[in-house]
Amino acid sequence: MTKALIVGSVALDSVETPHGSVASALGGSASYASVAASYFTDVGMVGVVGQDFDPAHIAKFRGRSINMDGLQIVEGKTFHWSGYYQREMNQAHTNTTELNVFADFRPKLTDAQREIPFLFLANIHPALQLDVLNQMKRPKLVAIDTMNFWIEGQKQLLTEVIKRCDILLVNEGESRQYCEKVNLIECGRELLNLGPKTVVMKKGEHGAVLFQKDRMIFFPAFPLAQLKDPTGAGDTFAGALVGYLARLGEINDDNLVRAVHVGTCMASFAVEDFSLDRLLTVNKDELISRVNTVRSMVQLPEIAHSSVEDHGRS
Amino acid sequence: MTKALIVGSVALDSVETPHGSVASALGGSASYASVAASYFTDVGMVGVVGQDFDPAHIAKFRGRSINMDGLQIVEGKTFHWSGYYQREMNQAHTNTTELNVFADFRPKLTDAQREIPFLFLANIHPALQLDVLNQMKRPKLVAIDTMNFWIEGQKQLLTEVIKRCDILLVNEGESRQYCEKVNLIECGRELLNLGPKTVVMKKGEHGAVLFQKDRMIFFPAFPLAQLKDPTGAGDTFAGALVGYLARLGEINDDNLVRAVHVGTCMASFAVEDFSLDRLLTVNKDELISRVNTVRSMVQLPEIAHSSVEDHGRS
Repeated sequence: MTKALIVGSVALDSVETPHGSVASALGGSASYASVAASYFTDVGMVGVVGQDFDPAHIAKFRGRSINMDGLQIVEGKTFHWSGYYQREMNQAHTNTTELNVFADFRPKLTDAQREIPFLFLANIHPALQLDVLNQMKRPKLVAIDTMNFWIEGQKQLLTEVIKRCDILLVNEGESRQYCEKVNLIECGRELLNLGPKTVVMKKGEHGAVLFQKDRMIFFPAFPLAQLKDPTGAGDTFAGALVGYLARLGEINDDNLVRAVHVGTCMASFAVEDFSLDRLLTVNKDELISRVNTVRSMVQLPEIAHSSVEDHGRS
Repeated sequence: MTKALIVGSVALDSVETPHGSVASALGGSASYASVAASYFTDVGMVGVVGQDFDPAHIAKFRGRSINMDGLQIVEGKTFHWSGYYQREMNQAHTNTTELNVFADFRPKLTDAQREIPFLFLANIHPALQLDVLNQMKRPKLVAIDTMNFWIEGQKQLLTEVIKRCDILLVNEGESRQYCEKVNLIECGRELLNLGPKTVVMKKGEHGAVLFQKDRMIFFPAFPLAQLKDPTGAGDTFAGALVGYLARLGEINDDNLVRAVHVGTCMASFAVEDFSLDRLLTVNKDELISRVNTVRSMVQLPEIAHSSVEDHGRS
């Protein structure tokens, strides 16, 4: 039974980074998120592609037992993004965005899809995110992602989506842009005040922070000495997070922390190669090893109360 | 008995940030570091000021039992830095640097100072850092800090200092500049290879990372929703780190982690106000409270091996 539904873009990406390039390689938020989630649970993907989309890509998803009933194949060309990353690779620069068939994408859920308990609305127009939300019966968890483009042009609609989600995923830059504030702690709190019980802020090489009303949890990124292509890192993170929660079944404080932890580690694989090349070949032991490494990086021994006295000073 | 010796600048700073400004306020690397260290151990400060230096400042240090025998008061004006921080406050911009009496500073240690076990060489010319190192008898621990200016102009001398220290403190930008690499993990490893057993990388709001040959430990910054003036944060961090190690006495793996942890928390006080205003009024309970908050931010529950299987997928 499909436990996680993922709605987003399926794309062909042409990407150049300091470590190489690919042309029209498999990409898109739903692609990364679905594969990441498929390590933990049964996934259904909702998206659209054109007739140019290589059936071998669909076979890859099906090979991971991802239910592809929600992938519309329509006349025209697949969404194509072309962009590059400079030396520090902390920002994507767009050459061209050809929406193609994605421009008329209207996700239409089947009755079975409307019953799926865990929903991830990847980065698409907030109007479509709302439309999907309205089609869902009674999801146990709704996680959403977005991007600077929608914050700039569709803030009001996006705010409606944020108000209705349980987990908001944002990166540093988006947080600052949405809140019009510099301080990330302030941003996290302001975003929580809109309604989501959980805000997960992604900070690339600096890890991630989980914000809730009464706590903040800090996650280091897995220490990668080489990163080839950051495309899809956030989608992978989110897909793994939602997929892992779906696998655990129960949404509680500890499980949310576990899901973010697993998400950061899964993202570290995605960026090791172009497209989904590395993400498709992760094995259990590798993932567990990164999970343990990250955990070992935050083992802080206790500090004795008596070691921090004013030492007789004024 | 003085356990920690701190050599660096004593300055008057004129600083403007989005939250206000001060003119000719007490500053300098030795000032911040000595006060921070003085919360934990007996400190000796080595520096130089001009005759314009307000004796009330010296009284402040003495009031915290900081041994001021090493402060030379010479003819001329005190080192004066004037600068500003823009909206994001992640970089200091210099208006003017008037070295004044600091230009001819030649630290000359007394016999007693040469015996002090814990040494922090704050940001000064690497030739002076080497000179101090050569005067020391047999320090138990040598920690050093530096800045972009010396990396640019005195890289060879600075490298000599790095080779001879136990703990190198650097920030993100300095690491990248020194190593001529973007990836911070690579930078950390390369700096370790120069000789220090420990490299502590400071990342401002993103916390700090401790690098050693066989481990990395990650520290979140204390979550401050408002930060008035970042001047002195790194010096405070380093001073608290060295002072706390001096207090614990034994340098081992756990104590190093504790010292960085305490350092990050102490730095969070320094940036809450201009000059040393807030740093001078920290009390034990406040510090312990921040130490506990930071610790609570990195409590990651275990992840069951069985929850991360390939789930029957290829």
